[in-house]
Amino acid sequence: MPALIDFRTDPSHYHHWHVEYEGAVAWLTMDVDEDQGLFEGYQRKLNSYDLGVDIELNDIVQRMRFEHPEVKVVVMQSGKDKVFCAGANIRMLGSAAHSHKVNFCKFTNETRNAYEAAEEESGQKYIAAVKGSCAGGGYELALACNHIMLTDDSTSTVALPEVPLLAVLPGTGGLTRVTDKRKVRRDRADVFCSMEEGIKGKRAVEWRLVDEVVPNARFEEVVRERAFEFASQTSGTGDEVGIPLKTIQRKIADDGSLTYTYLDVELDREARRAVLTLMGPSEDAPASIDAALEQGSDFYLLQLCRELEDAILHLRFNEVEIGTWVFRTQGESALVKAHEDFISEHAAHWFAREIRSYWKRTLKRIDVTSRSLVGFVEHGSCFHGVLAELLWAVDRTYMMEDEFEGDNRPLARITLSEDNFGPYPMANGLSRLETRFLGEPQQVDKARAQIGAALEAEDADTLGLVTMILDDIDWEDEVRIFLEERASFSPDAMTGMEANLRFAGPETMETRIFGRLTAWQNWIFNRPNAVGDEGALQRYGTGKRGDYSMERV
Amino acid sequence: MPALIDFRTDPSHYHHWHVEYEGAVAWLTMDVDEDQGLFEGYQRKLNSYDLGVDIELNDIVQRMRFEHPEVKVVVMQSGKDKVFCAGANIRMLGSAAHSHKVNFCKFTNETRNAYEAAEEESGQKYIAAVKGSCAGGGYELALACNHIMLTDDSTSTVALPEVPLLAVLPGTGGLTRVTDKRKVRRDRADVFCSMEEGIKGKRAVEWRLVDEVVPNARFEEVVRERAFEFASQTSGTGDEVGIPLKTIQRKIADDGSLTYTYLDVELDREARRAVLTLMGPSEDAPASIDAALEQGSDFYLLQLCRELEDAILHLRFNEVEIGTWVFRTQGESALVKAHEDFISEHAAHWFAREIRSYWKRTLKRIDVTSRSLVGFVEHGSCFHGVLAELLWAVDRTYMMEDEFEGDNRPLARITLSEDNFGPYPMANGLSRLETRFLGEPQQVDKARAQIGAALEAEDADTLGLVTMILDDIDWEDEVRIFLEERASFSPDAMTGMEANLRFAGPETMETRIFGRLTAWQNWIFNRPNAVGDEGALQRYGTGKRGDYSMERV
Repeated sequence: MPALIDFRTDPSHYHHWHVEYEGAVAWLTMDVDEDQGLFEGYQRKLNSYDLGVDIELNDIVQRMRFEHPEVKVVVMQSGKDKVFCAGANIRMLGSAAHSHKVNFCKFTNETRNAYEAAEEESGQKYIAAVKGSCAGGGYELALACNHIMLTDDSTSTVALPEVPLLAVLPGTGGLTRVTDKRKVRRDRADVFCSMEEGIKGKRAVEWRLVDEVVPNARFEEVVRERAFEFASQTSGTGDEVGIPLKTIQRKIADDGSLTYTYLDVELDREARRAVLTLMGPSEDAPASIDAALEQGSDFYLLQLCRELEDAILHLRFNEVEIGTWVFRTQGESALVKAHEDFISEHAAHWFAREIRSYWKRTLKRIDVTSRSLVGFVEHGSCFHGVLAELLWAVDRTYMMEDEFEGDNRPLARITLSEDNFGPYPMANGLSRLETRFLGEPQQVDKARAQIGAALEAEDADTLGLVTMILDDIDWEDEVRIFLEERASFSPDAMTGMEANLRFAGPETMETRIFGRLTAWQNWIFNRPNAVGDEGALQRYGTGKRGDYSMERV
Repeated sequence: MPALIDFRTDPSHYHHWHVEYEGAVAWLTMDVDEDQGLFEGYQRKLNSYDLGVDIELNDIVQRMRFEHPEVKVVVMQSGKDKVFCAGANIRMLGSAAHSHKVNFCKFTNETRNAYEAAEEESGQKYIAAVKGSCAGGGYELALACNHIMLTDDSTSTVALPEVPLLAVLPGTGGLTRVTDKRKVRRDRADVFCSMEEGIKGKRAVEWRLVDEVVPNARFEEVVRERAFEFASQTSGTGDEVGIPLKTIQRKIADDGSLTYTYLDVELDREARRAVLTLMGPSEDAPASIDAALEQGSDFYLLQLCRELEDAILHLRFNEVEIGTWVFRTQGESALVKAHEDFISEHAAHWFAREIRSYWKRTLKRIDVTSRSLVGFVEHGSCFHGVLAELLWAVDRTYMMEDEFEGDNRPLARITLSEDNFGPYPMANGLSRLETRFLGEPQQVDKARAQIGAALEAEDADTLGLVTMILDDIDWEDEVRIFLEERASFSPDAMTGMEANLRFAGPETMETRIFGRLTAWQNWIFNRPNAVGDEGALQRYGTGKRGDYSMERV
């Protein structure tokens, strides 16, 4: 393991992907450098990937939306001759710790969801142009695209060979997208997922595994045709000019605490706790959209979101024993409101739209983070609108009531805005408040009626917006007891509990991927048949099959 | 472990429950005999249960519907002084094999689903009358009832203490019913599921954990009131007369094969395979509903279903290495049709209704059985209507095409009936054909247009009803290769794959319990924090907490 996994990158640092821009079409080529592995001890042959490859893809998808809003179609293709992508690197999977495997899958799933949603959210449609073998995680890359084209030659196939070959699942959404997105008939899905060799040609179309199969001699031509055809059908003007995403600046202290511009992350390793403090803006919102574009990635709500996302990923991968994350804010609500109002006013502009989509994605990252999450609404805080979403993304929220001795900050308040009732749905398709009040839907209306009011503790409690309100006498003890208790529980049980309690209500493809599919994969990732010394992952490449316990559980 | 777990029982053999009948109300009392454990090595104090207790409950729920159709309300209560039920026995859970834990949870979940659905299906409403502590699996017993009453005294609480106390989940539907059925606010659910002591009195109502709280002095009186009040509101006449469910007769051969009246289960332990042959009826349907009631549990479709259910449970628990189940039928389609038509004609009669509900439950047991399931449509088979449902409950279906040399049985045919389009929904709320054709819904209509036609292989294939049709030349080889291949895969990977592929489409509380909740629980049941030597399950009762790895996964 490297000492620290850094999720910040930019095109000048890519090893595995390159992008060419041609007006409304971007050509995204995967060409994995075999030797530039994130960890030691394996080569990434056949375009197989590890986390390092996915960190670049994540960066590309993000920059595509902010730096290249003129792009309407992204064509994902391979830079290798006979292979599209062989999936996650098996040696890496075989040697990685359980927690890394799980974290890795979560991150890759989030990246796939991000580009899959780009068509609907940003008018950026992803095409998978598949030549050569496209197996396992490789086919899952394609499955998350909005359109799959397969060349018709003797070696180009799509396959999900994980079950027969590796005794694990196609866990990056593969099984779920086969049944739920592509609606492959279940007995055919069973056949397809049990075969090593995959399916090619017309049968792949007939079984709904790809959208079209193209004669090999005309493949490049038809892909090109299709790309510009799709590009011409989108609603964007095509003359949007992006903004550069500057490198996120952060300092890491010796104790692991992080300092960004608008975010502090204070670590207490002994207590296994991180306190994330989101700061309000220091200035008013820009006067015009041009002024905002001039600010670019320094624009408050964009910069804060980037810092928050970076901190989430950093803590997930590099601080696995920090089991509790506390979210708090400090700053002027009026200034947060000004920035949020600015986004609302310009909601039709691509820049405002992308900032909203980005917060949506980042809040969802919080929803699926397997740490105990808690919100503290303290004096001097600025939980307004989008920042208040944090209070319902977490498992519980504590709020200060009345004045505290020796504390002259403004009283703790929560302010709702229209943004709490629509633009930031959870994976289940509902807003966080709708999910929260599934049993009392009229509470959503009551909350909506309070938009704009600075709600003090008692009102917030009556509206059901917080879990507990505590005055000067109780705050310190109650909060301390809760944090200590939480830190004493089994992390596994907490993970399972949170995964079940956080997503009440409707299920979607996304909740099924993070809930059902991931849970089964995690189970399998603990079973000797997959990860034991004689399991399939360890034996892969030795010519010997896994030696399985044949007990059915 | 006993040599063989037998699911057949009757009231004369109960150790742990008794039922008193008072017209439309049945009083169901749980009074677990501490010393009559199914396994050695633990006492079942405080009404804690093991599989033996649940086998009786399952039998009671079943007999309630067939033997006591006059019952409209079932009051579940405790025969112990200060405890309603303490949940699953921890010592049993601590010492049981992983596969037993998983199988145990599945069976208990099925039993809870069965009585939860009894109100809607049979007009039998279950009331939990809770006095004393009601914790963990005990509260899950109550959660599956249709109405929960809690007495208001200092010791009567409801609780889900699994996470803090045992480092496992409330896995018998608890977490899912709290969020999805009772719609408890998620931060309150988090608080509730993190506390050992539970919640009592008015707060339990306010948090939606129970439906009503009743002063202790008036508890018996109000429960009684409520029971007869609910009974008077149901649609049944109250003068239905049940039929006795005779003991199921079966023979087990030395090689483990089973012979029932209408079902043969042939075991091949070396090949890890069971072949279940369902036989058609030998006689025509009864001439009248009175004649059918006269037959009672000998009525063909009821007896076959009871035998099938017994075989499913037997194979699940007693034959865990038999990884593939093959379903085939032999008999006269016309006679199956006659019996199915009889049920349709009398669909409004309680007896016909209960037989249908019973097939619905039993087919669902097949859906959630973690074995590879395959259907063989051979010559001489009788896959008509309800029996044809088996073909889409399984993972794949192979069908014989044209005549086979030396085989003079009637050609393989499948006949659809109205019953394939409604009365046997899967857990996802859709029929098996609707689920199968999610991607091509027009196929459902095409199939419906063929109701009554005896479809030979080519037609069945064109309609998408089978996975593969094979003629005399290919059948033996293809089928053999498939069975051998399937038997060679990792059972864990197959379980995970099947759990994801079988339930495309909408999710319901039931699919979430068997998918999301169960998967997470199974994962936790493999983790050292729960089941290791220093894990919480092993240490329970020693006064020492589990020693946890604090890594968050």
